[in-house]
Amino acid sequence: MYVKGVNLGNWLVLEKWMSPALFEGTAAEDEYYLPTQLSKEVYEARIKIHRAEYISERDFTRIKSMGMDAVRIPVPYFIFGDREPFIGCVEELDKAFNWAEKYGLQILIDLHTAPDSQNGFDNGGISGVCKWSQEPDEVEFELGVLERLAKRYGTRRGLWGIEILNEPILENMWKTMDVENRFRPADPQKAEGTRPNTMEFIRGFYLQAYDRIRTYMPDEKYVVFHDAFELKAWKDFMRGEKYKNVVLDTHQYLMVAEALGCEQTVESYTTYIRENLAKDIEEMQQYFPVICGEWCLFNSLACGCDTKGGQSVLNGVEGSAAETVSPEEKQRIYSALAKAQLDAWKKGSGYFYWSYKLLVDTVNEAGWIGWDSWDFGRCADFGWFPKE
Amino acid sequence: MYVKGVNLGNWLVLEKWMSPALFEGTAAEDEYYLPTQLSKEVYEARIKIHRAEYISERDFTRIKSMGMDAVRIPVPYFIFGDREPFIGCVEELDKAFNWAEKYGLQILIDLHTAPDSQNGFDNGGISGVCKWSQEPDEVEFELGVLERLAKRYGTRRGLWGIEILNEPILENMWKTMDVENRFRPADPQKAEGTRPNTMEFIRGFYLQAYDRIRTYMPDEKYVVFHDAFELKAWKDFMRGEKYKNVVLDTHQYLMVAEALGCEQTVESYTTYIRENLAKDIEEMQQYFPVICGEWCLFNSLACGCDTKGGQSVLNGVEGSAAETVSPEEKQRIYSALAKAQLDAWKKGSGYFYWSYKLLVDTVNEAGWIGWDSWDFGRCADFGWFPKE
Repeated sequence: MYVKGVNLGNWLVLEKWMSPALFEGTAAEDEYYLPTQLSKEVYEARIKIHRAEYISERDFTRIKSMGMDAVRIPVPYFIFGDREPFIGCVEELDKAFNWAEKYGLQILIDLHTAPDSQNGFDNGGISGVCKWSQEPDEVEFELGVLERLAKRYGTRRGLWGIEILNEPILENMWKTMDVENRFRPADPQKAEGTRPNTMEFIRGFYLQAYDRIRTYMPDEKYVVFHDAFELKAWKDFMRGEKYKNVVLDTHQYLMVAEALGCEQTVESYTTYIRENLAKDIEEMQQYFPVICGEWCLFNSLACGCDTKGGQSVLNGVEGSAAETVSPEEKQRIYSALAKAQLDAWKKGSGYFYWSYKLLVDTVNEAGWIGWDSWDFGRCADFGWFPKE
Repeated sequence: MYVKGVNLGNWLVLEKWMSPALFEGTAAEDEYYLPTQLSKEVYEARIKIHRAEYISERDFTRIKSMGMDAVRIPVPYFIFGDREPFIGCVEELDKAFNWAEKYGLQILIDLHTAPDSQNGFDNGGISGVCKWSQEPDEVEFELGVLERLAKRYGTRRGLWGIEILNEPILENMWKTMDVENRFRPADPQKAEGTRPNTMEFIRGFYLQAYDRIRTYMPDEKYVVFHDAFELKAWKDFMRGEKYKNVVLDTHQYLMVAEALGCEQTVESYTTYIRENLAKDIEEMQQYFPVICGEWCLFNSLACGCDTKGGQSVLNGVEGSAAETVSPEEKQRIYSALAKAQLDAWKKGSGYFYWSYKLLVDTVNEAGWIGWDSWDFGRCADFGWFPKE
């Protein structure tokens, strides 16, 4: 098994920077606060048009024509429409399965958010809050969502697998990402008690989730768990006979390398990729098939300025005001990094680019120069990937 | 000059079949009645998200990477935001110019609608109504819009030209298309007095429009006029010295051939294209550079059923319930028709495919099988165009 895929990020789980129009005229920084800032009717109108237009059948034909095998689809905890004021989106996922099956793609369903969040990131649903694992009822709710997903899609031809939970955060990454300063809570009272998850909790949750999912999903489909940003901490995990087709998902961004002090040059990036990512994946591939479920070409060098670990105008870090890196230079940087990263993923069992599509406007909006590299479609249009 | 381009249809001028979600829960069949069926807030929310997401910067990189030189952008008469309850969209066109200039594309601005309509089609803005040319104030308003467009964009590097008016209809096409039965007015009283335009009026309008546009637009930019579905009726038109860089635009769809009795076989379609389209374009190319400003691969044969001249489930004609034409057979049909049509356009000065993007769902919605051929992106994904 080797999977080549893209994420359909920002379709069913919103990220403000990826579709700014949805948040226009509001002070909301995340999906949680968006409905509190709009009338019910306007919220519904925006979300429904977004879902209908952001991803449609034609995106599946494009992804297939790009040579991909699969899509990873982030879904929110309210996918089944049972958590007011949010609007469910299971009909959209149903449609996606029909498109995928028609055009020969497979779907990795990725449960991307949890009530009160598993990481405090904006893309966890509520910025600056990370309390879900401390709330037993919500933990049970999340398990129920996984169970319902397995029940509905477990035997579908188009199902590649289900990912238990996206990016639950532990102590180390909490510090590296400087979550407390980078993602300030809109309501400090609601954020009270926020802290990273414990490894003990996450392991227990994964084990329970595995059992709940497998009840409805045949052995040949994959159960995917995220490494919680600790790629090498899982050597003793799920070693028993009963665990079938379990995949370890690691997310690797160059901006994390930058945050860890990697120099902003092609040579340093590629050394980092070769010496850290490729080696660690190779090592962990002995225990599980390892996929890189999120990665991209983005880096500060091609932006022409230090993004301080991928921070944007949205969190107060100015981007370049004008292009300073020529198209030829970008081509050189991105091609080298694409090759290095694709080589690293080959030590494992595949990858999903983040993300297939972004609406970030690098021409009309100041500060976004260089951010087109998050967009798989644009990267392909520009010829930044090596021909395989 | 030879131009290869695509239309950005349904972005700034709506067509229900191309983006059904916008019309959901309403009885509106066209852009005119949509705001009468929604609250002001919901209408605005739907339109704004649609405009922000349907076409964005990444579409310009894609179109460029497909080898195109230009886009034709249909705009409504209310583009400047001065006709309540409609919402203007000149900011979107501004953005498009910036994208086009960044990525090396040119824009043909196409004034696609007129108050009370110039053709009675759904895409003229109001189905079953065709009275604009009988209303002198509205005719003057339309000239004013052209003037303002020329003033705002006339000297932009990204401007290819301005098209005076899309598809004003005359007596012949009125009958061929059976407008009165195909596009029933929602309000028969409003439609009273509806009839095709006269050739005399259209000629006069074009002459006036030319003068108004040229005042602000340098000679090297193109003034484009549509043939009003009478390709060969313009031999004596605009012959004077003063007319510079005038382009004749003709729209040619196989569904019109079908409506005129062309048999639904590859051989008959290609004969029709060779004997009619190619010859007529070659003849008219002696008078003006001729472009085929709208065309596509759509035909009844590949749908697997007679669409009666391209009628859809929206106007009560059932489509195929399941695929009956194999992918290989579609490939054969579409490739042959693509080649024949592209050869015909080569007798003239270029083309614009209709359309770059459609949201029609051929998998989850019954009756739309075969309609993916209207979508340039999907046609490219499927490899239906010959490599040039």
